Amino acid sequence: MLNQSQLDQMFQALADPSRRAMLDRLCKGPASVSDLAGPFKMSLPAVLQHLQVLEQSGLVKTEKIGRVRTCSVETKALRSVEQWITARRTAWEARFDRLGAYLAEEVAAEKRKK
Amino acid sequence: MLNQSQLDQMFQALADPSRRAMLDRLCKGPASVSDLAGPFKMSLPAVLQHLQVLEQSGLVKTEKIGRVRTCSVETKALRSVEQWITARRTAWEARFDRLGAYLAEEVAAEKRKK
Repeated sequence: MLNQSQLDQMFQALADPSRRAMLDRLCKGPASVSDLAGPFKMSLPAVLQHLQVLEQSGLVKTEKIGRVRTCSVETKALRSVEQWITARRTAWEARFDRLGAYLAEEVAAEKRKK
Repeated sequence: MLNQSQLDQMFQALADPSRRAMLDRLCKGPASVSDLAGPFKMSLPAVLQHLQVLEQSGLVKTEKIGRVRTCSVETKALRSVEQWITARRTAWEARFDRLGAYLAEEVAAEKRKK
């Protein structure tokens, strides 16, 4: 279960198109920082700043092996955000199911009366 | 399909604990603005401001009937965000499945050689 602060950080990290593009890239497999920076028209410090936001949110992890820092997706974190949203969506849909069941029961009761 | 600006706005809307709490409440059913504001220790203008962010993101819709403004969840928007995350998570997991299949094939080929 994610706490409020973690959710704040994750959604904040996802609220930027460059960071989402980085995540998209990393979902295809781990990448070095320079590979990750490649397609972006921004300075390396800007890339590193976005990467830091992603890392602090827990969505991405980085590991330095020798002189290369490799970035990869933290799938567990991605799944946690997904579950958070799914729980809300299903709560909302369950409400309609209950309403539907109630109305069906009302109609059936009405028919029995006749 | 959501465009980048819509995704920005939705994730930004979700990056605040008060707005997530409002969404939680609305997932249980529609509410008037004053019902929605009830549990929050904040001024009505502050509530309205959060509500505006939620509405602009498309996650919540409000409708004024007579003198009462009723808020409800836009389930289609919630499902779109969910699908966005699910697509990334499954892309990442598919990568592992392919890697697993490749390794299994390598092991089998090695066994056949012996």
